[in-house]
Amino acid sequence: MTTVTVLGLGPMGHALAAALTAARHPTTVWNRTPGKENGLDATVAGTAAEAIAASPLVIVCVRDYAVAQSILDAEALKGRTLVNLSGGSPRQARAMADWAAGNGIDYLDGVIMATTDAIGGPDAALFFSGPADVYETHRSTLAALGENARFVGDSAGRAAAFDASLQDMLWTSMSGVVHMFALAKAEGIAAADIAGEAKALLGFFPDMIDVLAEQVGSDRYPGEYGTIGSAAATMDHVLDAIRARDLDNGVLSAARAEAQRAIDAGHGEDGFGRLAAP
Amino acid sequence: MTTVTVLGLGPMGHALAAALTAARHPTTVWNRTPGKENGLDATVAGTAAEAIAASPLVIVCVRDYAVAQSILDAEALKGRTLVNLSGGSPRQARAMADWAAGNGIDYLDGVIMATTDAIGGPDAALFFSGPADVYETHRSTLAALGENARFVGDSAGRAAAFDASLQDMLWTSMSGVVHMFALAKAEGIAAADIAGEAKALLGFFPDMIDVLAEQVGSDRYPGEYGTIGSAAATMDHVLDAIRARDLDNGVLSAARAEAQRAIDAGHGEDGFGRLAAP
Repeated sequence: MTTVTVLGLGPMGHALAAALTAARHPTTVWNRTPGKENGLDATVAGTAAEAIAASPLVIVCVRDYAVAQSILDAEALKGRTLVNLSGGSPRQARAMADWAAGNGIDYLDGVIMATTDAIGGPDAALFFSGPADVYETHRSTLAALGENARFVGDSAGRAAAFDASLQDMLWTSMSGVVHMFALAKAEGIAAADIAGEAKALLGFFPDMIDVLAEQVGSDRYPGEYGTIGSAAATMDHVLDAIRARDLDNGVLSAARAEAQRAIDAGHGEDGFGRLAAP
Repeated sequence: MTTVTVLGLGPMGHALAAALTAARHPTTVWNRTPGKENGLDATVAGTAAEAIAASPLVIVCVRDYAVAQSILDAEALKGRTLVNLSGGSPRQARAMADWAAGNGIDYLDGVIMATTDAIGGPDAALFFSGPADVYETHRSTLAALGENARFVGDSAGRAAAFDASLQDMLWTSMSGVVHMFALAKAEGIAAADIAGEAKALLGFFPDMIDVLAEQVGSDRYPGEYGTIGSAAATMDHVLDAIRARDLDNGVLSAARAEAQRAIDAGHGEDGFGRLAAP
């Protein structure tokens, strides 16, 4: 089994190290604040450089790229493979790949779309990008972090681009979900009473995503499933309801403004997918 | 079978009339612009008042409440039941209920969460509110419009409140979906390539909605599934990616601002559901 180093033992780093040790990889860990290795059957290094020197494969999982950069010792990493699972944007991923290349470090950028308890199991979505041969070398080891790891291409920023796009949908949608609960509550509707309806409505999203993907892929936006204009009219009713209850309307107002710009540009009778083609 | 009148033969009104005639209800229809009754086995009235006079149950489905109000003849409606399926807000529904009550008209407010092709079938979600006895009288007739019609309470605005809350989630989420496609496209990721990942991510939404409903219902927001602070950090990465591609960032920026207000109020370590409790 490959020896692996994990830098960063926050909740996610800890879960990664636990998955590696569970898969019987000899694991060395390090965290800036000591004492975070509780429960891990791993070697605890005294310094980041010492931890890096212990393994050909070094995984870093800290808060962001700036923190990652601050603990990564280029000299110690030279000739090893660095896998960065810290959160960041495609731009940051590309910059770190350039830094790694300039220092003789093999680099894979990765993102995790999972909660800590899903790490190592079938529900953890992980995306990796970078040189295909580097990924192939470590593929079986990285599979210990999640069965559904996916290599998305050799451009270093591509995993982060998948992540950013999906997180864009996720957090915008999450804002919509919590705002639904807020408006329902203001209207005297119990959360439990609308949750089932919300889930039923979400049941139509997979088909709708396929329709939108087809529209975006072909750059054709027929309005047969509803137009931007009709969506805008519905948003106006909702905004009226939100304002009547003095709730924050920033998110839906911004969505409404985007629809208006499309209407003003002559796309009011196009399908909603047109908004993906600015 | 009950005789029914449908006022308004836009795509949705036409679908409603078709579902009623399919269920063998003698149906009278009227539309401001003539000639929209194509394919309907219904009696076409010359005026709205004539159409209203033909049935004890009058369904109106036009663009909005203002248009509905402009075609509704109070004298003709007196003693009949009016079911308004036009789009509007809870405030507008309550105002129309007051108008109806003042004119001796039994009133049910209803909303349709379905595309026209789903009307009459198992996938059409319809919500009605108003006096329970009025709903009971017409329940079996209204069931022709959709098997899953649901009576949500005797407050006239309640159906519209369900609708507004669900549409709030729907259109905010839809904005997130199309923005995901826009960002992916800008990053060189094909729509078809991210659609599957988006659907996989949406697979976690039902459980997440249950968790949020539990939090909102109990007004307790533990951060165990992720905090507002960590969500804000992720949104910052996404915003960095959006700005780097010069895409519109209004919607997610508004969501980020809402998170920041919660953080500033000391709720950064709370779960995201806290945002539903302004």
